[in-house]
Amino acid sequence: MYPEYAMPLHSLILNCTLKKSPETSNTDALIDKAIAEFKRLGVESTVVRIADLNIPPGVVTRVDNEDEWPKVIEQIRACEIFIVATPIWVGHISSICQKVIERLDATFYDEELIHKDTGQYLFYNKVAGVMVTGNEDGAHAVTSRLCWTLNEFGCTVPPNATTYWVGEAGPGPSYIEAGQQSEYTNKMTLTMVHTLTEMASLLSANHLKTNLNELAERAKEPLPPIAILPEKHN
Amino acid sequence: MYPEYAMPLHSLILNCTLKKSPETSNTDALIDKAIAEFKRLGVESTVVRIADLNIPPGVVTRVDNEDEWPKVIEQIRACEIFIVATPIWVGHISSICQKVIERLDATFYDEELIHKDTGQYLFYNKVAGVMVTGNEDGAHAVTSRLCWTLNEFGCTVPPNATTYWVGEAGPGPSYIEAGQQSEYTNKMTLTMVHTLTEMASLLSANHLKTNLNELAERAKEPLPPIAILPEKHN
Amino acid sequence: MYPEYAMPLHSLILNCTLKKSPETSNTDALIDKAIAEFKRLGVESTVVRIADLNIPPGVVTRVDNEDEWPKVIEQIRACEIFIVATPIWVGHISSICQKVIERLDATFYDEELIHKDTGQYLFYNKVAGVMVTGNEDGAHAVTSRLCWTLNEFGCTVPPNATTYWVGEAGPGPSYIEAGQQSEYTNKMTLTMVHTLTEMASLLSANHLKTNLNELAERAKEPLPPIAILPEKHN
Amino acid sequence: MYPEYAMPLHSLILNCTLKKSPETSNTDALIDKAIAEFKRLGVESTVVRIADLNIPPGVVTRVDNEDEWPKVIEQIRACEIFIVATPIWVGHISSICQKVIERLDATFYDEELIHKDTGQYLFYNKVAGVMVTGNEDGAHAVTSRLCWTLNEFGCTVPPNATTYWVGEAGPGPSYIEAGQQSEYTNKMTLTMVHTLTEMASLLSANHLKTNLNELAERAKEPLPPIAILPEKHN
Repeated sequence: MYPEYAMPLHSLILNCTLKKSPETSNTDALIDKAIAEFKRLGVESTVVRIADLNIPPGVVTRVDNEDEWPKVIEQIRACEIFIVATPIWVGHISSICQKVIERLDATFYDEELIHKDTGQYLFYNKVAGVMVTGNEDGAHAVTSRLCWTLNEFGCTVPPNATTYWVGEAGPGPSYIEAGQQSEYTNKMTLTMVHTLTEMASLLSANHLKTNLNELAERAKEPLPPIAILPEKHN
Repeated sequence: MYPEYAMPLHSLILNCTLKKSPETSNTDALIDKAIAEFKRLGVESTVVRIADLNIPPGVVTRVDNEDEWPKVIEQIRACEIFIVATPIWVGHISSICQKVIERLDATFYDEELIHKDTGQYLFYNKVAGVMVTGNEDGAHAVTSRLCWTLNEFGCTVPPNATTYWVGEAGPGPSYIEAGQQSEYTNKMTLTMVHTLTEMASLLSANHLKTNLNELAERAKEPLPPIAILPEKHN
Repeated sequence: MYPEYAMPLHSLILNCTLKKSPETSNTDALIDKAIAEFKRLGVESTVVRIADLNIPPGVVTRVDNEDEWPKVIEQIRACEIFIVATPIWVGHISSICQKVIERLDATFYDEELIHKDTGQYLFYNKVAGVMVTGNEDGAHAVTSRLCWTLNEFGCTVPPNATTYWVGEAGPGPSYIEAGQQSEYTNKMTLTMVHTLTEMASLLSANHLKTNLNELAERAKEPLPPIAILPEKHN
Repeated sequence: MYPEYAMPLHSLILNCTLKKSPETSNTDALIDKAIAEFKRLGVESTVVRIADLNIPPGVVTRVDNEDEWPKVIEQIRACEIFIVATPIWVGHISSICQKVIERLDATFYDEELIHKDTGQYLFYNKVAGVMVTGNEDGAHAVTSRLCWTLNEFGCTVPPNATTYWVGEAGPGPSYIEAGQQSEYTNKMTLTMVHTLTEMASLLSANHLKTNLNELAERAKEPLPPIAILPEKHN
């Protein structure tokens, strides 16, 4: 049905709700929509609810022996499609989502997670998406924050790689209470799943060759002066 | 030298400084670094200083007969690599950069700029980068804002597609006064140019097939209920 | 009726819509609600639609002889309550609102606008509020951006000094089309007007004495080392 | 020496570093500067390092019996000056700072924390400040996020109520390593302490009378139509 995706692809979705299982999570309800569509495209999905795991805050790969973060890192290694899903709290990502970002920050500095020859970070050649639910406002701020952060970590962000639902200004129903079938959100979710899958397929077959180690070396020398530049046109 | 880039590639860089030519622009000095590297990779660059053009604010494709925005749209059509470059003012993108975003917002609704069959927006199959200069703070906020916005417009954002320079807290030298050779900024600039070029090359040879029209149709019907979903694993 | 406000108070509201008069502005419709309540409290309001004036971008007090910004500065001087009102475009303040911020940035450096003895900026002893309309999302990002910016310029921000209306995720009716009587928005608007008025009355009768010139002098010397500090308790 | 502050004033500073005591916190080093100046003004300070307490995430006043958050709430009740201090991680507030915001969100809905007659929230008649340290960029984004949030919770934000230190773009020394005596940061810190103290003194002697219960009632009825409004002038 989707013969172009020759390679098996896997999506990993981190649900950063504050609620532990089995409490109902609105973010999870939105995630379900994406999983169903990934399945149609032949992509297998795994959801990790971070609140269920023992993951202390910190900016290191492993905090202590009970730390369950290293197994999330293994799941990240294994996926081609990486999605961060978060509720909005007081206009921004959940504290659990920020904790995930802080833990991921360590991947920049962990030699085991960086490609020895190219210096590429853990997330190079993976694609990233963002899913957000809230009862009002904040989705654009959250997706901006996550788009940039995931890009900084090394992810490629394909077109329209975000989906969200929020209600009108003020207190009001959450995603599930509101019926969870907003046409606009549905469209964003489907689009995100398709562009993520296409791009993951493309990148899996065509790894980036950019050599960060070489570029880091070159960056130590001054870059060419303006004078030698070609004419610029308006 | 870079035989993998068979197709000729073009980068278009919008400099959103508040200053008109020929006033010296710090953002322009950073842009020069990118242009020189693009040239090494065989990518031809065009810089447009928006302040030099007569572009009224608005959320339409053409405001009036004197409006020079349509010719920028033509330049966007022709490029594979699209970069927005802006100074930081009071912690955020320049008013001219926001004006550009508002004008670009019209591309969502202009039938001439949307692919008839696939519904893909003007920026699908183009890649996007962000360049920022300021004398202190704000680069991450600006790059987040632009990363998401350009992704929303349909751009693909390859890894580390942003570069910036800012100084220490408080008033202080601007990019040029500070010597314009920060090793960290140089590294980001080189990396951005390389990942943009690789990804543009990849996308030019492999256009995304995602059909937004079809997905928009499907979004009108409810997406599958949770019940039929596969087991999810933590 | 409100005898506690002995002094006459004036509010100045800058409407940063992209539309020129007499085009209908949703932001203006929200502003009207505030003006009516200010009137009940005996506060006289002035609205300036920035798009109607000839105000070039820049970071100076006066750009050229046609520049109408200086007369806005005179209106700011005369008010006790200063409100910035803006629509949301692609998740953020309008380009015209950002232009206003850039022009206001010059007030930090213009000797005529700074109190000679205390070094207090133009906005010291004025209070600030924020009004936002959009058809979906972005209100919190916009109010955060403006709250901080106005505070940085020297304004006092009394409790709940912001009001906004946004609709559900996706395209949809704007404030006026949606009936402009959201109970939540009404409550925020009334609260904003009351806290602004109370605080303006308080500050008008009790100007801050903080001497920025003296503090700037002291800042040149090292501040006391940790060692001499009192015990801190958790 | 500061006879105008007749009433004893107390500042409460929440240090949202990720590090537990006695690990060295850069944010703590900046906090020390503020405490020393508060002491000069006769204001007694308390610092709470949130990482040292057992505070689970959530949006409730008390999560379980071991939850130490309620004692922070008691400290908040007792202070007139409330400061949130946070490091920057990947461009934003720490996960611990976001956790604090989420826990504070419950104060909106906890009847015991809301004034029965006026409906005023816990933070009404308290003033708020923000302190931020990072090794590069992000201070304005963090202060914006906190300025608005604290204002939303009911705090008054006096002029220039924020202070921060960040270094140049890229990895580099943290606040302590950089010598912790930036003249600009020192000036901001002194100014913040003085305006917070003046405004806290003013508010302690002049509690706001705004009755949120009454305004909430009025908000249920339509606010006056545009037609009856006075002429607006440009």
